[in-house]
Amino acid sequence: MVAPSILSADFANLEKEIKAVAEAGADWIHVDVMDGRFVPNITIGIPVVKSLKKVSPLPLDVHLMIEEPERYVEDFIKAGSDYLTIHVEATKDPVAVLRRIRELGAKPGITLRPKTSLATVLPLLPLCDLVLVMTVEPGFGGQSFMHDQIEKISKLRQEINAKKLNCLIEVDGGINAETAKLCHEADVFVAGSYVFSKDYKTAIASLK
Amino acid sequence: MVAPSILSADFANLEKEIKAVAEAGADWIHVDVMDGRFVPNITIGIPVVKSLKKVSPLPLDVHLMIEEPERYVEDFIKAGSDYLTIHVEATKDPVAVLRRIRELGAKPGITLRPKTSLATVLPLLPLCDLVLVMTVEPGFGGQSFMHDQIEKISKLRQEINAKKLNCLIEVDGGINAETAKLCHEADVFVAGSYVFSKDYKTAIASLK
Repeated sequence: MVAPSILSADFANLEKEIKAVAEAGADWIHVDVMDGRFVPNITIGIPVVKSLKKVSPLPLDVHLMIEEPERYVEDFIKAGSDYLTIHVEATKDPVAVLRRIRELGAKPGITLRPKTSLATVLPLLPLCDLVLVMTVEPGFGGQSFMHDQIEKISKLRQEINAKKLNCLIEVDGGINAETAKLCHEADVFVAGSYVFSKDYKTAIASLK
Repeated sequence: MVAPSILSADFANLEKEIKAVAEAGADWIHVDVMDGRFVPNITIGIPVVKSLKKVSPLPLDVHLMIEEPERYVEDFIKAGSDYLTIHVEATKDPVAVLRRIRELGAKPGITLRPKTSLATVLPLLPLCDLVLVMTVEPGFGGQSFMHDQIEKISKLRQEINAKKLNCLIEVDGGINAETAKLCHEADVFVAGSYVFSKDYKTAIASLK
């Protein structure tokens, strides 16, 4: 599956952008929420997700790059997040936050930053529908793919298959037709600048 | 002047919304930035301001409701903020931040929350092009006007006139045709739900 990240879209015309990538074959819409504390950028938040939900024909895959996500998961789910992904380093009790997300009716996800060890998130996988492997340091679009993260994807695939877990692997950061091939064991490919800087249909088809 | 706040606009179609309020007689576009730390909401940030700048025929009046605004003033100015307003409580050195905003080419503003005493901001007025009086607790749109804040506007008007300062008074929170009358000593009226929930032209004309 391909989840275009609106971080690289035209924020003045998100309805048009979302409908265009949906027609071009996208599966989900990836929404990067940054609070300026957990990562050094401030992007979009709750009222934007609410507006997107009204117009998106695709599920909203919301990635919370914020401190203490427990303070806002309810707001983001009420606003219309289908998948809601948190960072293990952002909260003291990731187990409670992931459970709360499911309880509130959304699909919980956990993220690995490049420096996050796989061991930190393995015990959380049974609580997740999604595990997001960052192949750049989160904060900005347009960065280059970090090859040393590929091994994590393989190890996650082995773990998920071995334990028959119902958890999708998503990869985000520097994804294009070449780097996507290297991550062939992932299920969902987030791409921002690669999709929005060219013909959407061609870009999405090349990823698939 | 009237500055419609896009906090109450359709975030999926901001270009359309901004052009519509511009045609309906608006003077500035008011942009509410919240980080989920200084106020209990996360709204929009740098990439959104950048997209708005490309399409807005009106100045962008950006209100930073964020902790440590010094970390982001440069990004917000590069993104296209014309006015950039900070909270006195959000930073240890408001003087430095206001000077930095001017140095970077934008017009600095300072905000009073309902609980902020006038005495705290009076020494800062000579460094500002704008002083924003909040007539609700910042964080959300659609709240009711706090009448006890009107006195601050009168006192600010006296101070600005007495010292011949070049500083506009802006008022934000629960503004409609009735409450705007009570704040007649202000120069700029921010209105969100009042403008975006009805005919834009009628609403803006009624405020003027």
